[in-house]
Amino acid sequence: MNLILFDHPQPSYRLAHDDPRARHIRDVLHMGVGDELFVGLINGPRGKAAILADNAQGLWLEVDWEKDTEPMLDVCVIAGLPRPQTARDLLREAATFGVKELWFFKSEKGESSYAQSSLWTTDEWQKRLRHGAEQACCTGLPQLRHFENLSEALKELDERRHKIALDVYEATAPLSTLVKDAPALTLALGSERGWSPAERDTLREHAFALAHLSHRVLRAETAMAAGLSVWLGVRGVF
Amino acid sequence: MNLILFDHPQPSYRLAHDDPRARHIRDVLHMGVGDELFVGLINGPRGKAAILADNAQGLWLEVDWEKDTEPMLDVCVIAGLPRPQTARDLLREAATFGVKELWFFKSEKGESSYAQSSLWTTDEWQKRLRHGAEQACCTGLPQLRHFENLSEALKELDERRHKIALDVYEATAPLSTLVKDAPALTLALGSERGWSPAERDTLREHAFALAHLSHRVLRAETAMAAGLSVWLGVRGVF
Repeated sequence: MNLILFDHPQPSYRLAHDDPRARHIRDVLHMGVGDELFVGLINGPRGKAAILADNAQGLWLEVDWEKDTEPMLDVCVIAGLPRPQTARDLLREAATFGVKELWFFKSEKGESSYAQSSLWTTDEWQKRLRHGAEQACCTGLPQLRHFENLSEALKELDERRHKIALDVYEATAPLSTLVKDAPALTLALGSERGWSPAERDTLREHAFALAHLSHRVLRAETAMAAGLSVWLGVRGVF
Repeated sequence: MNLILFDHPQPSYRLAHDDPRARHIRDVLHMGVGDELFVGLINGPRGKAAILADNAQGLWLEVDWEKDTEPMLDVCVIAGLPRPQTARDLLREAATFGVKELWFFKSEKGESSYAQSSLWTTDEWQKRLRHGAEQACCTGLPQLRHFENLSEALKELDERRHKIALDVYEATAPLSTLVKDAPALTLALGSERGWSPAERDTLREHAFALAHLSHRVLRAETAMAAGLSVWLGVRGVF
């Protein structure tokens, strides 16, 4: 955790003595009275917080807020709903990279049981997003949407964005050659067992280019990180 | 697991009925007699294996071996020895990407207890590498080395390789602008708490360029994947 996220703006905060964030500040960051750390408001500004006191009544932070809120990447990631453990990693990494929109669809090769996981039926998915943003030392969280299938998701596409689907098997070119002039990106990832023939047809009907990251088969969260990194590298951000 | 790795070359293999690989073929890949899957020899060729039988005596595979062994990436990743959980992810991802050499050093901001983990005192680290290669559907495993500190590691550098250290705080340029002409790469990652001032001096003495991946703070395994992806993207591989 490189930043601590709060839900509501205040000039100062009191964390209960045994609040996990207070313990993190003490035991992992090894910080105490007088030290400074980053805090932030979800989808709002960051600030530098000074530790004013740390005693049985709690840990007190006084915040000097930044003026501006950092924009997120103009990216929509569309992923086949994966196993919950993979979804946890995708949620965290998407927030770490600052992905603006993260859409999941039920893929033909996925399993419907994935949607019943406690990841989705509790607020755990929100916590994963928060952890990803806190890792990045940023405040923005991806907007999450769920779709019944790929076609339903593609009806909602923002046509401003360059459309790429990652595919190990039927891609025509490496990703880097297809995103040179793309200021905004829609990046579609298959499910863990890959795209079905019908899903590939649907992608082509919506003018997606199929791109590869060599012939190596990457985990879903790694493919997302690699794809975003190639695009950000080509654009000189990374 | 997209490929099953074996240690010794044979024209056919018998997996015990309850061997984890036999169960994976049956229960995850949903494959049976007549189906084909990829197998490989560690640091050797891949092959297509046909399932000849699957019964109480075991699961029988007959292999048609490829002629050539795929080369690995001409990359040495040098990482501060991280928490064991992070090391597990680094090992797996380095193998998935096909990193040729993976070196760990005890960093000034790391903790010496990390080296006593069962990850390193048992053969678990080798299993993590194997899983990474099996994920990629490739056979090569990174060569692993451990060093007492950064200076000891840098004495062993292969000077053919372009030298880059990732650094959120004191980098002078994005990575993509520094690796355009690099056919071979040494990529240094700090420990989880970053480089110490002395370590930065050591890197500069060895002519490392400090590169960033924007201001976002990435996990170690994500930084490695992102850095390699930027380089492979700039070179048109990804």
